[in-house]
Amino acid sequence: MNKYKITILPDNIEISVEENTTFIKVLTENGIKFEFPCGGAGKCKKCKVKIFKKSGQEEVLACQLKVTEDLAVEILKKEQKHEILTEGVERQVVLDPLIKKVYLELPRPSLEDNRDDWKRVAGNTGIKTNLKILQDLPEKIRESDFKVTLVLTGDEIVAIESRDTSDKLLGMAFDIGTTTIAGYLLNLKTGRELIRVSALNPQTKYGADVISRIKVASESKEGLEKLHKEVVAEINNLIEKAVKETGYKPEEVYALTIAGNTTMHHLLLKIQPKYLARAPYVPVVTERVIVDAGDIGIRINPAGKVFILPNIAGFVGADTVAAALAAEMDKSDELKLLIDIGTNGEMVLGTKGRLFACSTAAGPAFEGAHISCGMRGAPGAIDHIRIDEELEYTVIGETLPSGICGSGLLDVVAELLKAGIVDKNGRILKPEGVTSELGQKYRDRIVDINGIRAFILEENTATGQPVYINQKDIRELQLAKGAIAAGIEILLKTFNAKVEDISEVFLAGAFGNYLKPESACEVGLIPRELEGKIKAIGNAAGGGAKLALLSEKEYERAVMISKKIHYIELSTEPEFSSVFAKNLGF
Amino acid sequence: MNKYKITILPDNIEISVEENTTFIKVLTENGIKFEFPCGGAGKCKKCKVKIFKKSGQEEVLACQLKVTEDLAVEILKKEQKHEILTEGVERQVVLDPLIKKVYLELPRPSLEDNRDDWKRVAGNTGIKTNLKILQDLPEKIRESDFKVTLVLTGDEIVAIESRDTSDKLLGMAFDIGTTTIAGYLLNLKTGRELIRVSALNPQTKYGADVISRIKVASESKEGLEKLHKEVVAEINNLIEKAVKETGYKPEEVYALTIAGNTTMHHLLLKIQPKYLARAPYVPVVTERVIVDAGDIGIRINPAGKVFILPNIAGFVGADTVAAALAAEMDKSDELKLLIDIGTNGEMVLGTKGRLFACSTAAGPAFEGAHISCGMRGAPGAIDHIRIDEELEYTVIGETLPSGICGSGLLDVVAELLKAGIVDKNGRILKPEGVTSELGQKYRDRIVDINGIRAFILEENTATGQPVYINQKDIRELQLAKGAIAAGIEILLKTFNAKVEDISEVFLAGAFGNYLKPESACEVGLIPRELEGKIKAIGNAAGGGAKLALLSEKEYERAVMISKKIHYIELSTEPEFSSVFAKNLGF
Repeated sequence: MNKYKITILPDNIEISVEENTTFIKVLTENGIKFEFPCGGAGKCKKCKVKIFKKSGQEEVLACQLKVTEDLAVEILKKEQKHEILTEGVERQVVLDPLIKKVYLELPRPSLEDNRDDWKRVAGNTGIKTNLKILQDLPEKIRESDFKVTLVLTGDEIVAIESRDTSDKLLGMAFDIGTTTIAGYLLNLKTGRELIRVSALNPQTKYGADVISRIKVASESKEGLEKLHKEVVAEINNLIEKAVKETGYKPEEVYALTIAGNTTMHHLLLKIQPKYLARAPYVPVVTERVIVDAGDIGIRINPAGKVFILPNIAGFVGADTVAAALAAEMDKSDELKLLIDIGTNGEMVLGTKGRLFACSTAAGPAFEGAHISCGMRGAPGAIDHIRIDEELEYTVIGETLPSGICGSGLLDVVAELLKAGIVDKNGRILKPEGVTSELGQKYRDRIVDINGIRAFILEENTATGQPVYINQKDIRELQLAKGAIAAGIEILLKTFNAKVEDISEVFLAGAFGNYLKPESACEVGLIPRELEGKIKAIGNAAGGGAKLALLSEKEYERAVMISKKIHYIELSTEPEFSSVFAKNLGF
Repeated sequence: MNKYKITILPDNIEISVEENTTFIKVLTENGIKFEFPCGGAGKCKKCKVKIFKKSGQEEVLACQLKVTEDLAVEILKKEQKHEILTEGVERQVVLDPLIKKVYLELPRPSLEDNRDDWKRVAGNTGIKTNLKILQDLPEKIRESDFKVTLVLTGDEIVAIESRDTSDKLLGMAFDIGTTTIAGYLLNLKTGRELIRVSALNPQTKYGADVISRIKVASESKEGLEKLHKEVVAEINNLIEKAVKETGYKPEEVYALTIAGNTTMHHLLLKIQPKYLARAPYVPVVTERVIVDAGDIGIRINPAGKVFILPNIAGFVGADTVAAALAAEMDKSDELKLLIDIGTNGEMVLGTKGRLFACSTAAGPAFEGAHISCGMRGAPGAIDHIRIDEELEYTVIGETLPSGICGSGLLDVVAELLKAGIVDKNGRILKPEGVTSELGQKYRDRIVDINGIRAFILEENTATGQPVYINQKDIRELQLAKGAIAAGIEILLKTFNAKVEDISEVFLAGAFGNYLKPESACEVGLIPRELEGKIKAIGNAAGGGAKLALLSEKEYERAVMISKKIHYIELSTEPEFSSVFAKNLGF
């Protein structure tokens, strides 16, 4: 088979590939970041690149490109920005971080005080040391003129620094989402957040959802290794970016806290997630894990520690624990409901006395996957729509629209329902079947696209192709919202409570933050009775990770929460199927 | 400069060396074990080797050989055996080893019992795990059909083995002496000792005493590295030998306990011992240290642990702690004295209420160093002598004598004192000055050798050279015994007790085991009043290391002992010099 040379510009990376290799594969296999917003369908036109070949140069869609000759390809380096929520619930905690510093001026050894070096440092505190510290100790204390700063976690010494460095101590909190990684650099001496950084989880190139990642990881040892390295590399990028932009160095970061769903958790730790994907869906570990940064390749101070928050079960992970911590689900006398809709939909219901959690296969519909014109909440996404006398919408980044994100999808369906264009069963009516006065205004937007009935939202778009929603998309939404609604119903039943007993609904995650509560209730994602009680709390998982980093007590509290929450496996609930089916309609 | 090729036979090792390199250097720098008993002086003739060169073959002394042409050198592979005491005090302990095994048949995961793998293993025991265990866990338990054996230490999991291996569990106890390394392979399921192994500490090639080792280690990073690697390599050899001879594998050994003096301790852990050798003589660490075997290159099970016994001070180390443990110095109502004479002389005095220790620079005289015909207690060494109507002696290995070891030296001096050949000041009298009836019989043995007065013990020897003791040797012995006697006196004074208050004297170490108590008292090494109270307890340091391995409580007890013993720094005792001087005479 022929081989051709591809040169990626402007970085001038040379790659040799076999004839007919797709350009998607070329980029993916060589770790080059590039987004194909419509998943390579050739629809969104957002992956346009300039190619240089013998016959001249031209612009093509990268997703449609196959290699049939030597090529140079210029990838536009414009940052693939995407809006993520890194707000969280800010609540007050007493600053008592997982890593601390103590400055000491040690008495010098003398014949009257000839204690060993380590005793001189540790006194009778019972602090535990390690071989590395001991090996460095004699020179360290002497070259520092017996003035040293101890870096501690719990009763364990992490490092010894020369002289007084106690005013400088950094940590980072991470939320490793299936789609997005968000990091927060915190000054642990002041508690102040210095910067927020985020990136697409690079594992997405192996699949949008956890199941496809698990498949890759379980097929071979290399698969697991690959996914592990991808996420670690991106975390390292974000650390580097965060410290660089704030004028620090990675070595000044001594602690990371990490929240993520159970699959992300396992992949980060290079733990095989295979058994998460098959009944009975058991994780390898749920309890808190603390590892040396170096053990998983995290580049902070070489002696630094990574504090992973605990999981609850295979599909309710540390991210839910962190969100429950941020929302203080363990302190409420009143019944509260927490819903975190990311790539999956996890929810927690209860009071401080009793807490239940479940996970529903909400699927990535709300993140734009499996939706004709779906996309994540990135620039170009229609995020809100109102259909009244006019059809009005807003677009993230205030550009021409190129697709529709989760909150937009929810709005569209809610508005189409109200306008009588979609019926209670989720069917888009034929133009002639629309009888409501409002609906009739929009009859001409109901068209067939590729043989499927669709409703056109906008024809003047960034891609040149119309942005629309079709019958299939509505079915996807029904499955997603049906799953979540059923989850709420089962949790309520388990708790032996009614919808109206719920005093507050916390909506976590980007989608939860952007969605219009009215639309969520209109489509039945959330029971109508709760409309006034909905509170968006942003990236609560990240918020919980921050709290844990800033306060030992909060980290311990996360551990308590993970133990306290009873996990309900919906697949074993005999009535789940019927409740789910009942919730499919609007 | 010319280079020549040396071929070492029978192992056929080829080495390229520069002209005029000494053969001692060739062997030392290439890690080839060979002993030069007289230190390369060309006197003992024990380093004879056969060389093959162009002009033919001949026998030469290896210590005198310089390389001036291509050579093959045949090193006789006869084992350099040396008798070491690996007896110790055997006392009963309840078997509760530092490492344990538990066999588990785990319930299989089901939708009703979908706990995570680790919880399934650990239950609610609170056992701590580590990343390596978690990474291997899912496959391990499934390929073992959920039947596994846990290897545990304290509340920490060390390893998980497939199926039931709980009947097989090995550990090794080591005493790392300045001169000798002794190892004991123990079956931790039965408490039975399987084999004892020992070897010369290979660091001896860098000097006989701790001070010269510290010098090498402190001169460069490579020096420390080199000494560290030497001792680790020899420990690994001994482990391999021990398991091989008993039909086991190194991977079946999960725990090592190690006793050694503070310098040996630091070198083993690759901790810089520099500050041990200069006032105020502070160690880097005295408390117990537990490390992963792999962290210091020990080849047992890769997950195995090394439990180092704690030190007391710079010159009273874990070997003394172990000996005190073996002798139960912490349980006695009566005043007891423990003396461990190795390359240094450490002693502990006290009751269970109060314990004091000191170290004296006894020097390696009792190990044969700095003595004209001195040698360790190896075959060929005169170990006991009686001078009466006949001069009778015994030789280790029942061969012709080739030198004299510590216990022999002590006997000679004691007997010469009694015979009136040596006076109270330690002077060997001139033949004509000997007036006692007995002494006159041996007048003709008093001769001048190299201008120094000497007493000939035997002329018919293995080396062809006479074995004798000279005036200088007696001065060395006086310094050594004076130091120990002064140590005892200062300890008694510190405790505010008299010699006769001591109810028992434990003599630890090889020399202590072989010496004739009568001779020790005759020369004043030990006060005369204690002659009937002396009990030899062999390699008590090794005994203590074994006890600690077999019983968690004994390891904890060693920790308690190390904290309980008050260290007396003799160099700061104002009266030490005068007490020492007073004890130089006989």
